[in-house]
Amino acid sequence: MDLKSLSKPELQSRYEELKKRYDDYKSLSLNLNMARGKPGADQLDLSNDMLDPALLDGFRACDGTEIRNYGVLDGIPECKALFAAILGVPEKNIIIFGNASLTIMYDYIAQCMIFGAGDGPWAGKKIKFLCPVPGYDRHFAILEHFGIEMINIPIGPEGPDMDMIDEYIKDESVKGIICVPMYSNPTGVSFSENTILRFASLKPAAKDFRVIWDNAYCVHHFAKSRDRFYNIFEYAEKYGTQDFFIEVTSTSKISFPGAGVSALAASDANIEAIKKRMTVQTIGYDKINQLRHAAYFTNADGIKAHMEKHAAILKPKFDSVLNGLEKNLAGKGIAKWTKPSGGYFVSLDVLPGCAKRTVQLCKEAGVTLTGAGATFPYGKDPLDSNIRIAPTFPSADELKKAVEILCLCAELAATEKLLNE
Amino acid sequence: MDLKSLSKPELQSRYEELKKRYDDYKSLSLNLNMARGKPGADQLDLSNDMLDPALLDGFRACDGTEIRNYGVLDGIPECKALFAAILGVPEKNIIIFGNASLTIMYDYIAQCMIFGAGDGPWAGKKIKFLCPVPGYDRHFAILEHFGIEMINIPIGPEGPDMDMIDEYIKDESVKGIICVPMYSNPTGVSFSENTILRFASLKPAAKDFRVIWDNAYCVHHFAKSRDRFYNIFEYAEKYGTQDFFIEVTSTSKISFPGAGVSALAASDANIEAIKKRMTVQTIGYDKINQLRHAAYFTNADGIKAHMEKHAAILKPKFDSVLNGLEKNLAGKGIAKWTKPSGGYFVSLDVLPGCAKRTVQLCKEAGVTLTGAGATFPYGKDPLDSNIRIAPTFPSADELKKAVEILCLCAELAATEKLLNE
Repeated sequence: MDLKSLSKPELQSRYEELKKRYDDYKSLSLNLNMARGKPGADQLDLSNDMLDPALLDGFRACDGTEIRNYGVLDGIPECKALFAAILGVPEKNIIIFGNASLTIMYDYIAQCMIFGAGDGPWAGKKIKFLCPVPGYDRHFAILEHFGIEMINIPIGPEGPDMDMIDEYIKDESVKGIICVPMYSNPTGVSFSENTILRFASLKPAAKDFRVIWDNAYCVHHFAKSRDRFYNIFEYAEKYGTQDFFIEVTSTSKISFPGAGVSALAASDANIEAIKKRMTVQTIGYDKINQLRHAAYFTNADGIKAHMEKHAAILKPKFDSVLNGLEKNLAGKGIAKWTKPSGGYFVSLDVLPGCAKRTVQLCKEAGVTLTGAGATFPYGKDPLDSNIRIAPTFPSADELKKAVEILCLCAELAATEKLLNE
Repeated sequence: MDLKSLSKPELQSRYEELKKRYDDYKSLSLNLNMARGKPGADQLDLSNDMLDPALLDGFRACDGTEIRNYGVLDGIPECKALFAAILGVPEKNIIIFGNASLTIMYDYIAQCMIFGAGDGPWAGKKIKFLCPVPGYDRHFAILEHFGIEMINIPIGPEGPDMDMIDEYIKDESVKGIICVPMYSNPTGVSFSENTILRFASLKPAAKDFRVIWDNAYCVHHFAKSRDRFYNIFEYAEKYGTQDFFIEVTSTSKISFPGAGVSALAASDANIEAIKKRMTVQTIGYDKINQLRHAAYFTNADGIKAHMEKHAAILKPKFDSVLNGLEKNLAGKGIAKWTKPSGGYFVSLDVLPGCAKRTVQLCKEAGVTLTGAGATFPYGKDPLDSNIRIAPTFPSADELKKAVEILCLCAELAATEKLLNE
């Protein structure tokens, strides 16, 4: 039954029915949370053995480096090799950082602001970035922090609207794009090969154009049908655009979110510029943690096997969300949602104008969601439609109930809206 | 025998004697290193038990925080408490960072460049910093990187020349000072209470004046007569100058140099401004490592006991250096040196004009020292006199030989110079 086809009296009666169920939930004083893209405790347990000091045998990296002492700016060889294998780039194009790829991105943009990316400092100039939406709020926070103007680029099933991007980058003040190319936050969309080709062949007016290529979920499959990983540098080399791309990733959702290892992949020229800054910023990052990771995972196959253990925990949770959405919202003409094969989120679009109200209704019924609008620059969803669902942290039982309530609230908000039209 | 009192023929004969001994050393093809302020392997071993996962019992901080997952911007309570106890400030005025206080300082100056410290961004303006000399090359590298003009302020037995500082800070473009107040790198000088008072009562023209107070060695005593620790914030509060001070420290030379924990202490207003930036830059630093440190050291007494173990290793090394200098250079009128009670360095002043030559002679005889000039801004020692000696990394035997050769080279360089006068 499409709600939009109902008469006002029918809608009113549906509204009252929903409202009664909603009030019943409210009286339960629930406290459920689908806001945070955090692994659950059972996922964290998967990596506990990494903390065994036996892995650090002799405290030596494979090249003999004493890992407890100062030194090694760009990471120990075996840790660079691990990320090189995951991202498909040579080890010389990898730098290992601290526990957060967010910091790598922040620091890179800060570097562009103060020193530029080959065409003078960005500070003091009008700088614009293209932001595929819905996207990751912390990306937008970095750009807003530095006063960079953000322009929304809609994401479709194959990735961002590349025609729109081609048009915008004719403007020299458009200095870059920030995006998640695989299992994108929050849509779960992975860029198609065609989209990858379009990125690789971009012809921006700005000489110092940069794409922050946040491959946070590049090994984070949970479904049997996995999206394909495309190595952007392989494509970019064909067009000589490799300097455009700053790729980052981390083990935050492989080992421990607070205590993992992050990495950057970039062209020779960019690696050189970044290392030049790093020699001033640090003597080197935590090599004990680097060896812990390299010794525990060994290689890309080790990572793959480990991610299958995560998948076994995550798949039922995503199924629970998707089944709940299907059961409660399908056919009502008031919502659509993504069905990802990996990553950490499901993206739900409710009836335009109803996202804020849905999130508010949920909150009042004890279900916390990411704030409506958070998936857009400046926290402003132009359609007030998108809601990010994070299924990983709650237990299966909590999740089931939380999704039921979310669907109820989405429908309630929609009927309210339709009644007022 | 003061070399400067010798006649030319006497000098010539002394030169030939030294030269012969030098050539003998050279033929040994030695490879000794006194360049690096790195703990030795025996010091690193002192903290190995910290890697025992049993310390991480239940993976919970004292407030229940799951340390393996995301969250906690400013550090877990017990780690903040540890640094609060060391520095004598309230926990609310502490932020825990990653493995390097160098990065805290870099990031703070970067923040001043882009956003300022309350009086507009520093970028694009003429900015000057006062640099007590001899000092730490990595401090100077940060300032130089950001295009900040550095002005030398000589350090005496009580700390920097405060009259000179009072004079310079009348200039509004002088925005700060960077210094090591205790067991300073490389002099080993600790600021006297009078110097601390002078710092606390500074009256700079710049409203956004900042003192980077790098307390890297605040618990790093090795002699029985320990220098006193003065809490700068206690003094600053009397004058209302607490916003001037950004204090940093770390466990780099307590636990592991590459894998320690660093911390910042600052006024309420500065903590607020720094946290505002941090919320964009990171979700939080490595809490597993924070708990590892807090659980292993427990409190300030635990740190003190641990530092005594370091002292037992370091004292003989410093004695060896000081005895060697005394035995080979005393009374010759060509050198003076500091006799620190803590820290990581001995500062040697050779005959003006002879530091570069001494370091070069050492290098050719297989003894690596920190480059002459490195202890001054822009790598330029105006007198070409200062040499930093780092006694901690070599073994006792290596050290003894290295100091002998250093003394020989200093005297050789001096005789060369005196012969050419």
